[in-house]
Amino acid sequence: MLFIPMKGVVIAPRERCLCVDGGVNFIPRKTIQKIDIHFPGPACKYTEIIVTLKGEGEQKCLNSETSFAKNLIKKAQKINGP
Amino acid sequence: MLFIPMKGVVIAPRERCLCVDGGVNFIPRKTIQKIDIHFPGPACKYTEIIVTLKGEGEQKCLNSETSFAKNLIKKAQKINGP
Repeated sequence: MLFIPMKGVVIAPRERCLCVDGGVNFIPRKTIQKIDIHFPGPACKYTEIIVTLKGEGEQKCLNSETSFAKNLIKKAQKINGP
Repeated sequence: MLFIPMKGVVIAPRERCLCVDGGVNFIPRKTIQKIDIHFPGPACKYTEIIVTLKGEGEQKCLNSETSFAKNLIKKAQKINGP
């Protein structure tokens, strides 16, 4: 099992929710290297958004209640058809 | 260095582009566990979308020229402000 230690987020093969708290509301776009959208599954019933920052690759949970997160999730769910 | 073998995609700490070919145009939503949006950076000048499928966790590159991919990237880039 690979655990990558990081503030407020446990990255492991999805055996449970990755975001242990609500997550941050604000992340400057230019600091972002990657955005992961984890859809609900056996391990976690929530859609979670994990942002990897440039540089050291720190990861943060994005509060999925923010309007940005809601819009991104809505868009991601439309991968095929409405 | 951690290499996770997978068709058409090399997952490693981003030292170069992850998608060695154009990627697939179609992935049924219900088969998707996770969507990764990799923004351009020192390692790769392209925005790349990598989809992890349910089950074995197979990963595929999504063709970033598809309308879905373009919309998702546009949305993801608006994380803070227009």
